[in-house]
Amino acid sequence: MQSVKNRLYQVIYETDTPAGKLFDILLIILILLSIVVVMVESDDTLPPAINKAMVVMEWCLTGLFTIEYFLRIAIIDRPRKYIFSFFGIIDLLAILPTYMGLIIGGTQMLIVVRALRLVRVFRVLKLTRYVKEASVLWSALLSSRNKISVFLFVVLIIVTIMGTVMYIVENPHNEGFKSIPQSVYWAIVTLTTVGYGDIAPVTVFGKFLAGFIMITGYAIIAVPTGIVTSQLVNESRRQPGARVCTDCLKEGHDYEAAFCKYCGHPLK
Amino acid sequence: MQSVKNRLYQVIYETDTPAGKLFDILLIILILLSIVVVMVESDDTLPPAINKAMVVMEWCLTGLFTIEYFLRIAIIDRPRKYIFSFFGIIDLLAILPTYMGLIIGGTQMLIVVRALRLVRVFRVLKLTRYVKEASVLWSALLSSRNKISVFLFVVLIIVTIMGTVMYIVENPHNEGFKSIPQSVYWAIVTLTTVGYGDIAPVTVFGKFLAGFIMITGYAIIAVPTGIVTSQLVNESRRQPGARVCTDCLKEGHDYEAAFCKYCGHPLK
Amino acid sequence: MQSVKNRLYQVIYETDTPAGKLFDILLIILILLSIVVVMVESDDTLPPAINKAMVVMEWCLTGLFTIEYFLRIAIIDRPRKYIFSFFGIIDLLAILPTYMGLIIGGTQMLIVVRALRLVRVFRVLKLTRYVKEASVLWSALLSSRNKISVFLFVVLIIVTIMGTVMYIVENPHNEGFKSIPQSVYWAIVTLTTVGYGDIAPVTVFGKFLAGFIMITGYAIIAVPTGIVTSQLVNESRRQPGARVCTDCLKEGHDYEAAFCKYCGHPLK
Amino acid sequence: MQSVKNRLYQVIYETDTPAGKLFDILLIILILLSIVVVMVESDDTLPPAINKAMVVMEWCLTGLFTIEYFLRIAIIDRPRKYIFSFFGIIDLLAILPTYMGLIIGGTQMLIVVRALRLVRVFRVLKLTRYVKEASVLWSALLSSRNKISVFLFVVLIIVTIMGTVMYIVENPHNEGFKSIPQSVYWAIVTLTTVGYGDIAPVTVFGKFLAGFIMITGYAIIAVPTGIVTSQLVNESRRQPGARVCTDCLKEGHDYEAAFCKYCGHPLK
Repeated sequence: MQSVKNRLYQVIYETDTPAGKLFDILLIILILLSIVVVMVESDDTLPPAINKAMVVMEWCLTGLFTIEYFLRIAIIDRPRKYIFSFFGIIDLLAILPTYMGLIIGGTQMLIVVRALRLVRVFRVLKLTRYVKEASVLWSALLSSRNKISVFLFVVLIIVTIMGTVMYIVENPHNEGFKSIPQSVYWAIVTLTTVGYGDIAPVTVFGKFLAGFIMITGYAIIAVPTGIVTSQLVNESRRQPGARVCTDCLKEGHDYEAAFCKYCGHPLK
Repeated sequence: MQSVKNRLYQVIYETDTPAGKLFDILLIILILLSIVVVMVESDDTLPPAINKAMVVMEWCLTGLFTIEYFLRIAIIDRPRKYIFSFFGIIDLLAILPTYMGLIIGGTQMLIVVRALRLVRVFRVLKLTRYVKEASVLWSALLSSRNKISVFLFVVLIIVTIMGTVMYIVENPHNEGFKSIPQSVYWAIVTLTTVGYGDIAPVTVFGKFLAGFIMITGYAIIAVPTGIVTSQLVNESRRQPGARVCTDCLKEGHDYEAAFCKYCGHPLK
Repeated sequence: MQSVKNRLYQVIYETDTPAGKLFDILLIILILLSIVVVMVESDDTLPPAINKAMVVMEWCLTGLFTIEYFLRIAIIDRPRKYIFSFFGIIDLLAILPTYMGLIIGGTQMLIVVRALRLVRVFRVLKLTRYVKEASVLWSALLSSRNKISVFLFVVLIIVTIMGTVMYIVENPHNEGFKSIPQSVYWAIVTLTTVGYGDIAPVTVFGKFLAGFIMITGYAIIAVPTGIVTSQLVNESRRQPGARVCTDCLKEGHDYEAAFCKYCGHPLK
Repeated sequence: MQSVKNRLYQVIYETDTPAGKLFDILLIILILLSIVVVMVESDDTLPPAINKAMVVMEWCLTGLFTIEYFLRIAIIDRPRKYIFSFFGIIDLLAILPTYMGLIIGGTQMLIVVRALRLVRVFRVLKLTRYVKEASVLWSALLSSRNKISVFLFVVLIIVTIMGTVMYIVENPHNEGFKSIPQSVYWAIVTLTTVGYGDIAPVTVFGKFLAGFIMITGYAIIAVPTGIVTSQLVNESRRQPGARVCTDCLKEGHDYEAAFCKYCGHPLK
């Protein structure tokens, strides 16, 4: 019995064995399939036959995910720890909405919960070579979070003030700028260079101001890019220099270096 | 009496004590609330009951800000210096429009002044850990202001000339390009990749030129980004020099430096 | 006979001689011309005379490309290797669609194959000074492909979840958000700051969420830029090491290096 | 007489004296004014009185520029060199169109020539502190022109092939994709994230492909940014290191450094 539990553990939780890899790939396919099902189901214009097929598939996938969830609980040593872990909760959220739909009817909120299934793919990726890359990116974002907060706050102030000014300029001539929140929304659309065009200035002075906001947005996009890039450059610069030459105590050696580049002493 | 003044000073101007922190947080909440009030008030489609509530709230908030303003003057040693400082003026501008509205009626200009309240949040942030980040960003922008000016001037020339050319190409076939300023506005919308679509070329040659402007805009957005990024990379390269020369007390030494680059004294 | 083959080889495959350069320039002109022919042919609104001229030109160009293709096979030592190489297949695909059009009629799929001719220009560029630049860019993209994959996957998750949320918020009030795939499409249009405006939020909460997505998109565009830039900065930092160790023949040494970092031998 | 010529030379060609500076500022104002005149003149909807005023102003400005042009020729030692220099030709083009308008009538082409006046501002800037910044930017763009050419060519291939594919997918269902050049235009609008929305995909597969192009465009914008940034970072890194320590022959010293940071020897 113990050996069955052990083998299942290796298949479900680990990724070194061929069976474990196969399980992961299968899981990713099922997750992506269930996302497709959620999406197709939402389309009212499809013939009812397809809709019915989607409902059946949704139940099959939920069944499989339910079996997987209880297997995960059964074969782990400390089930409580798994259940309340981040991925334990995500796994539960992946099956709950379908069952809840039986009781309280298919409310819309449940669809979002079902879309969260996509996050489960991360669990599988967690065990692969993407981890290192993701953690470099993550740590670069984390170390620049204060700078990015400052930047976002400045953006917020700019769009609020520019939105208010544009409201005053355009409101009497333009239905689109009917209130300040609406004008701030337009300022965000413009500053981020999205530019839907559902709201656009019509007065000459409004267009002049809009041009000013656009060029501002075009120029200050440089700031977050600069923040993240300089962080990544520093990150990659710091990594190699972790080793210190035992002879001259200098650091800054590349990953591949076997000898100190300053004194020629072998590196450890 | 003096001790009351001292305690109030610590609460209002400083941020080290729990009471000072609480005051700052309260102030931020009140400022953001007053911005929301300004925004909601501008929406004509809301029922009059909400509008009336907004007016009442505006008066309450202005009252609180007025008390705060006079307290700030009362407890500081040199009130004149505060009153004419940047934040002193901003604080006054935060309360003035509401009172002025009584006399000269709610002109639109006053709304913008009220939106400036958002700038007051900076005062609170000034005292926190965001200061260092903001000052790094600010100094990076400041050191690259000449480069950015050159860039913006080149952008100005490009949009003027391209706008004129497009005016000549599109004007006879397209209502959107009815004058050169309008065409220049279109060129800005296009070069910055905003692209509202309220004005778009219709002739084949116009579309060809537009494609050319787009790719230009797509490529030269690299320039401001490059400017700010290389500045930030240099900035952060200089930072490691947290070491201070024991002889001349100057800082800014590179990692590898063994001697002070200013006075030649050995570094520790 | 051998010398004719040799001379033809130099003209067609090499680029050092004036004749070889002329051949390359001629080839690029013919390729670009054939692309123009494909494009003009697709325009139904042109008079039939032009259409007829295009068909004639297409046959002339295909004839020339066919001669070139068989010449390439004839004069090379190992024709089989050429035929199954990347550019051998591209060369074949450049002539096949026109002949196939005779048999199976001008199906649309053939137009795409004909557009692939543009790739042939790369063969010519392969032999020029652009090679080094292209390979630096390519290797920078290649070394950051894992980081970019992680980024694209995160973008995919963001647009899926935000699209689902927007579907729930906007669907009852907005024809544009008629299904989740459509909403995800809108989220991509918004996050990438393209912003067509064919679908735009109309509810207040929808606009609020849209503003959030825009600012997210505006901020996270910094990530791919940061990845590629830091890679290119590192790449260019490694380049100076054009010096080769006289002992182990490895290169990639930093400017300051006095000793080979691979074998410890002094560098010159 | 000679001294008058000398004084005029200093005022017109140089910028060190107060009079020279005043002349430059005056010139910039007149140039910008003449651009405004060109723009306003193009607006047909303005009352004829304003139009007439513009014509008068245009003649006054042209008169002043004509005087300036002949003064420049009169006071320089080698007039021929000035006349055929870049700025000599630009100066001539600034006055010619108005006179030519008398003879051949106000053809549209002349408006573009008049807009070129804006380039004259560069002459004034040439003599100021912006020169260094502009030349750093220019040399960074120049050293990366091969990389940028490769990038632009890849972008061209992507938009051609994606445009052709979209033509095949969308043409039967969508008026916007009526020919391949039009589809390529759409692909440029989308890839550069401009997104007018005058042409947008309507089929499900078309939208899927469009999403793919958008994310591609969003990701590859990183490439030109990376190119320019890494160039600027290298540029700024190379600048300080021009000086060499006379004692240890090491370089890489900052601008402010007075002593070698490796051996403590004074730097020259």
